[in-house]
Amino acid sequence: MRPEWRRRASLAFMRVGELSEEQLLARIIPRLPAGTDTLLGPGDDAAVIRAADGRFVVSTDVLVEERHFVRAWSTGADVGWRAAMQNLADVAAMGARPTSLVLSLVLPDDVEVDWVLDLTDGLAQACGPHGVGVVGGDLSGGPAIVAAVTVHGDLAGRAPVLRSGARPGDVVVHSGVLGHSAAGLELLRAQGPTAGGGSADEAAFVRAYRRPDPPLTDGPAAAGAGATAMMDVSDGLLKDLGRIARAAGVSIDLRTRDLGPALDELDVVAQACDASALGWVLTGGEDHGLVATFPAGAAYPAGFRRIGVVGPAVGGGGEEGSEEAPDGGPRVTLDGAAAPVGGSGWDHFGSS
Amino acid sequence: MRPEWRRRASLAFMRVGELSEEQLLARIIPRLPAGTDTLLGPGDDAAVIRAADGRFVVSTDVLVEERHFVRAWSTGADVGWRAAMQNLADVAAMGARPTSLVLSLVLPDDVEVDWVLDLTDGLAQACGPHGVGVVGGDLSGGPAIVAAVTVHGDLAGRAPVLRSGARPGDVVVHSGVLGHSAAGLELLRAQGPTAGGGSADEAAFVRAYRRPDPPLTDGPAAAGAGATAMMDVSDGLLKDLGRIARAAGVSIDLRTRDLGPALDELDVVAQACDASALGWVLTGGEDHGLVATFPAGAAYPAGFRRIGVVGPAVGGGGEEGSEEAPDGGPRVTLDGAAAPVGGSGWDHFGSS
Repeated sequence: MRPEWRRRASLAFMRVGELSEEQLLARIIPRLPAGTDTLLGPGDDAAVIRAADGRFVVSTDVLVEERHFVRAWSTGADVGWRAAMQNLADVAAMGARPTSLVLSLVLPDDVEVDWVLDLTDGLAQACGPHGVGVVGGDLSGGPAIVAAVTVHGDLAGRAPVLRSGARPGDVVVHSGVLGHSAAGLELLRAQGPTAGGGSADEAAFVRAYRRPDPPLTDGPAAAGAGATAMMDVSDGLLKDLGRIARAAGVSIDLRTRDLGPALDELDVVAQACDASALGWVLTGGEDHGLVATFPAGAAYPAGFRRIGVVGPAVGGGGEEGSEEAPDGGPRVTLDGAAAPVGGSGWDHFGSS
Repeated sequence: MRPEWRRRASLAFMRVGELSEEQLLARIIPRLPAGTDTLLGPGDDAAVIRAADGRFVVSTDVLVEERHFVRAWSTGADVGWRAAMQNLADVAAMGARPTSLVLSLVLPDDVEVDWVLDLTDGLAQACGPHGVGVVGGDLSGGPAIVAAVTVHGDLAGRAPVLRSGARPGDVVVHSGVLGHSAAGLELLRAQGPTAGGGSADEAAFVRAYRRPDPPLTDGPAAAGAGATAMMDVSDGLLKDLGRIARAAGVSIDLRTRDLGPALDELDVVAQACDASALGWVLTGGEDHGLVATFPAGAAYPAGFRRIGVVGPAVGGGGEEGSEEAPDGGPRVTLDGAAAPVGGSGWDHFGSS
């Protein structure tokens, strides 16, 4: 065996517990993208980021092994990509351009160093092309992999697009994919880690689960075009539109005929899986597409397509997470009636 | 039993796994401080924070149960306080005023809801008086409690104070306490959860471990007074000064006579514990005081006291975490010689 090969092989099987935090950081930091708005990157007590707007947007999201991913179905790079993208989508959903993120990473001692570097690369692949810097982080040991990402964005002088801005009569539009990640997860459950070999659609859905690719630039575009409300679809269309409806004190009606293209994309695979394309579209989470509302007749950006309308004002409030309006009816309907699907989206936290 | 008492009792023993994420958030969010620079708080896809300076400072730090705290020795409020303070200190160490933080919290299903609300209150107690808003967060289930905090700060037009700015001939000064947290931890190890009853000093040290209270306003004050370098002492004086020395390419010499007051504070308890006051001062972590360097003769703010001097330039570089200068000598000395203590501070990550 040639010496350099032996060296590579030993690196490949090195475990996190064999390195100090500083030794591991020294391997990670050179792989991170600098970002276009980073004034001071990693290495001091804190980073410094440009905020020319005089404000910044901030959001945080955490991925936990066994809850949000399993190592058998996702590479380290897939996990890094998802950890970044689900956060970048939150910034886009405010109408902002993401500028920077920081990562707190908890790693059991037996995780391979290569897996961690792979995660770092996935993070870089998601952030780099958007000019987003990975500007800081913290590492700790612990009993399971936890990746907590905090992301920042720039509103470029615009008002943030809130959930509460939807108005009766607005159209509801969506950009990105619907139900693809749920379909991919179902394929992985049914077929295991090699899922996705059956057709180009299957491969695309497994990839959508592993590497969601939300239309980030459509967020600022929608804000500029006058979106009245916006959010990213992380927990399923019904559940997330329910949040907009509740915040705005309105109801929302989805139209099957408007969802037709999304249903058509899923139909063949859904039948093969004995699953419901409509169920995936309405309750599938983690695609991180953008759902927005616009005044009727407004020209919305090309990436969006219409999926429904905002109905009459029905009052806001009620327990967060409740699907009922104050009158007891559902906040979000399909063709004017309760949607024929069980459940209403992901809840990674509850035991139910 | 009166009905309201029954209700309180059942709340007291309710576990996190019995609530949905949204139900738990609905209990947490009203307890969080708004902050003086918060333009939009929790509840949408992201928060919006004022950054009048046109830049913001950002840092992240994670606490993991069994690695950084145990529930037997710290209340939920203690953990929340520490999670906040160790981050606020990082911002202060840049010379910035903290403005806002976000929290990602991983909770096993069997954690009591009251423990989580207590953590929230500790976070609020640490942040509220400084005008720091707790502006967002994420919750997830998982196998251990993990609290990942990301904090932001405002430089108010000043340059950030970096580690690399220390110059030969500068004085080294410190504000805050040294070794108190290490002494408190030792008391807890020796005496268990009721430690600290022996004397006012013991009580103060246990409290310093549970609720470190770094001099946050001394950070911006030092920046304004011309500090050349600064950081917070989280991993012990030797290890953290080693980082300044390495970044600046200098050596640093601590003076026993300058450390006298810090040693005097610890002496009685150290003797009772059969421990070394000098060891606590030099290698005790987690006090989060601020160590800074100033040009000789400069007037530094009143909270700081002199602990040493910056020696000659010896070159930078070398592996991060190495305690040696390029000439093979120690980067940080005590009275001109290697410090007579084993180890050099905390490494929460490495298995060594």
